[in-house]
This record gives sequence, structure tokens and C-alpha cells, in this order.
Amino acid sequence: MSRKASPSLLIGIHSVGSALARAPGQLRLILVAQEARNPRVRELVEQAGAAGIRVVSESRSLLDRRANEQRHQDIIAEFEANNIGSEKDLDRVLDAVESTPLVLVLDGVQDPQNLGACLRTADAAGVNLVILPKDGSAGLTPVARRSASGAAEVLDILIVTNLARVLRRLKERGIWLAGTADDAGSGLYGSDLTGPLGLVMGGEGKGMRRLTSELCDFRLSIPMQGTVSSLNVSVATGICLFEINRQRASA
Amino acid sequence: MSRKASPSLLIGIHSVGSALARAPGQLRLILVAQEARNPRVRELVEQAGAAGIRVVSESRSLLDRRANEQRHQDIIAEFEANNIGSEKDLDRVLDAVESTPLVLVLDGVQDPQNLGACLRTADAAGVNLVILPKDGSAGLTPVARRSASGAAEVLDILIVTNLARVLRRLKERGIWLAGTADDAGSGLYGSDLTGPLGLVMGGEGKGMRRLTSELCDFRLSIPMQGTVSSLNVSVATGICLFEINRQRASA
Repeated sequence: MSRKASPSLLIGIHSVGSALARAPGQLRLILVAQEARNPRVRELVEQAGAAGIRVVSESRSLLDRRANEQRHQDIIAEFEANNIGSEKDLDRVLDAVESTPLVLVLDGVQDPQNLGACLRTADAAGVNLVILPKDGSAGLTPVARRSASGAAEVLDILIVTNLARVLRRLKERGIWLAGTADDAGSGLYGSDLTGPLGLVMGGEGKGMRRLTSELCDFRLSIPMQGTVSSLNVSVATGICLFEINRQRASA
Repeated sequence: MSRKASPSLLIGIHSVGSALARAPGQLRLILVAQEARNPRVRELVEQAGAAGIRVVSESRSLLDRRANEQRHQDIIAEFEANNIGSEKDLDRVLDAVESTPLVLVLDGVQDPQNLGACLRTADAAGVNLVILPKDGSAGLTPVARRSASGAAEVLDILIVTNLARVLRRLKERGIWLAGTADDAGSGLYGSDLTGPLGLVMGGEGKGMRRLTSELCDFRLSIPMQGTVSSLNVSVATGICLFEINRQRASA
């Protein structure tokens, strides 16, 4: 994947620890508060040292400023993601997929916590590639990364300017696009989801955009009961992805 | 269900609107900012008036104080929940269930947003009853209610002091308890989930407590791929509940 220009931040013990464990090569620098007393922070500093990552002690107030009001627990890491690409990386990433491709397209998830939860879910479901439109989507902010629990640093993620063109390319490559919508289509459980598939989830309020929706080959709906009109997007993503995996495992 | 002593708050357009639509009988009073200009707020005020609910105009700064830093969008409602009970309501609620019972037990979900998302998911899955331990669980705070998108006002919810005793009572009533754990048991998809069932989800970090775990009749595990070690509790809840529904619909 292509390198991004400026380093991003991982904030707090859990985020830094996940990256150290799973993607240490992305870490450029670790900032630790001089006042740090938490043994877990000391452990991470030792791990970082052993991995050859530069560790700098700073005042807690400097970390406060860098963390911009987020709880940093005396540790922040600067990193350069090597798992984030753009449209031009699409073919290369798909060529490397050895199993039946499973792609997740998030068309306009705007809440960073929801985005992170979707990524965490995608990783747990073995998704090969996540596609986000550059406009109208939450970014991979520290909040999103924290909510992703490490998935944002390991999943192949493409941030694309022209989502429609990317969806057409997926179709050219034999990947069927399954949209999701409250309004219907065939039920999730009545559809054959065992082939190469791109699952397209809409954003929190409005769902998929019109053009995105038109490009989908079929629609899935989750059979709803109760009085609530919709599911949280990360929950709906999990239900769909794990149903795909269930079908594939029993196919 | 028994009435709680002091009124709780619903904060913001979405929370107040959901309750007005689904549980207007619980609303005692609506506070609107004198400065309110949003037509959606005016609509809610009209709806409330038509439903005979008292509406009081106050300064925005008073609403700021009542909302305690949460974004209130110029509207707050006081309500008395009539869907929240305790252990003594268990038999009555179960007696009223006409279908095969589906109970959700959340053993120590501590983040209010996660609790809310679990409730929203439970409602969408047609859960008959949600059981929360009084200690070690997030409360039904305004944040939890907002995240539940209306489900917290309509679901039957029991907040119990002695969870083990309640679980034993469920078993006496022929409801099997299915625990969830990362460490194993039979897979989610290999278990027969079509009978009367209580799904027991653990909290975010530690999972189910030991005693809770020992009371479960069997364990379910969600087959995980990728590098992330767990799913968000509301996502895991959704995957399990909708798999239960899928099995029941095809049984």
C-alpha cells in the first residue's frame, strides 16, 4: 500500500498496545509522560525498545495537547500506516486474495466509533478489503482506531475518491455487490452469499447513496422485529458478514 | 412493571421523538428552550400537546444544566419508565410471552453506549425480556437511552440484585441458558437454538462472571478470523440473536 504523508496518532494503552503487537513496523515514535506510573505503560515502553522503536519522555501536559482532549493514559504513538491505499491499489490487493473474496464497502458511515466498530467486525469476519469513500465518511481518526481495537492497523483499507468507479471495477472482476436496505429486497437468509461478494453498507441516517444503490446486483434485508426501525450499522454489518461466513462454511 | 421513584430524562430530538412515538404514556413533562427554532422541535411540541403531555418553555441555559453537557437540541423530556422491573416481575413477564421465550442477559456491560446498542439490537431481534444485574452494569442513563434509539423505553427490562437466583429461576421455567465465551464450547452454528433460550453475554473486558458462567447449560462461540481478539458486545449480541431467529424461522 502507499504511504501517507504525515504520521497519525494512536492514543492510549489499548491502541498503542494493539499496534505494537500487530503492526510494529508502522510505529515511528512513542511519547510517554514523564509522570507515567502505570506498569502497563512501562511494559509497552520496554516492548517498543526491544522492537527498535524510538521512545521519548515528555511532560504529561504535552501529551494532553497532542491527544486533544482524548484520554491518553500517558502514552501516545506516532505511526505511518502502510495498510491504507487508494483506488490504484484495488487490483493489487484483490490479486493477493487467495480465498473467495469478501469485500466490505462502507458508503458514508459518519460516526468514527461506528466506523471503528465496523472495522473490528470486518477483521473478525476475515474481510479481505474495506473500501471507504473519501468524502462523506468518518476518517481513521484516533477515536475510530481505538474503537477498531487494532483492526484499523491491519486490515487492507482503500479510501477512494470515486466510489462508483471502484464498485464497477469490483463487478468487472466478478465480485457481486450486495446492498443492504431497510426497504427490502430478498431476505438475508434467502440469498446465496457463497460467491465472490462485496457487502455494501449505507451510512447511519440515509443508508446507501442512490448511485451506490443502483450499482448493487441485489439487496439484502435483515428481518426485523420489535419497534425499533433500524440496527446500528456495525451490528448490521456483523450480522451480514457472519451470515456470509456461515453459508460459506456450510456450502 | 413497577414504577421507579424519580423521573428520568430523555435528551434531544431523537430520544424524545422515539418515546413520544412509542411510549407516550411514560412522558411526564417536556422542557423546550425558548430559543428553539428547529421545526422538528416544534413538531414534537405539537405532538406532545395533542397527547396531553405538559410542555414548559425554559431558557436554553436551564436545559444546558439539566442535560449536563449532553447535546439537547433544545428539547428534554422527563419520564417515568413503566417497562423497568425487578426480580419479582420475572414470572409475570414470562407468563405473558406467547412465543418461544427469548431472553437476553447482559452480565456486566459497562459502557452505556454498548448497553444501548445491545438494547436496540435486542428489540430488533424480538427479545421478550432483557435482564441486567444491578451492580457492575451500566445504568439506563440518557447516553444509554440515546444509543438504544427508543428500545430502552419499550423493551421489558429487569434490573436484578441477585443474577444467579434469576438465572436459576429461568432454568426452572425450562429456559436453557446459552453463555458466550471466546474460549470455546460448541460453535454458534452447530448448536440447536430453537427452544426456549436465555442468551447470556458477558461484559466488555472480562466476559461473564464465574458464577454466571457455571449456570449456563452450554456455551456458544462465534467463529473468529483475522487478528482482533473479540467483537464489540453489541455486535456479538446481534450475531447470536439473529442466528437464533434464523434457526427458529427455518425450524
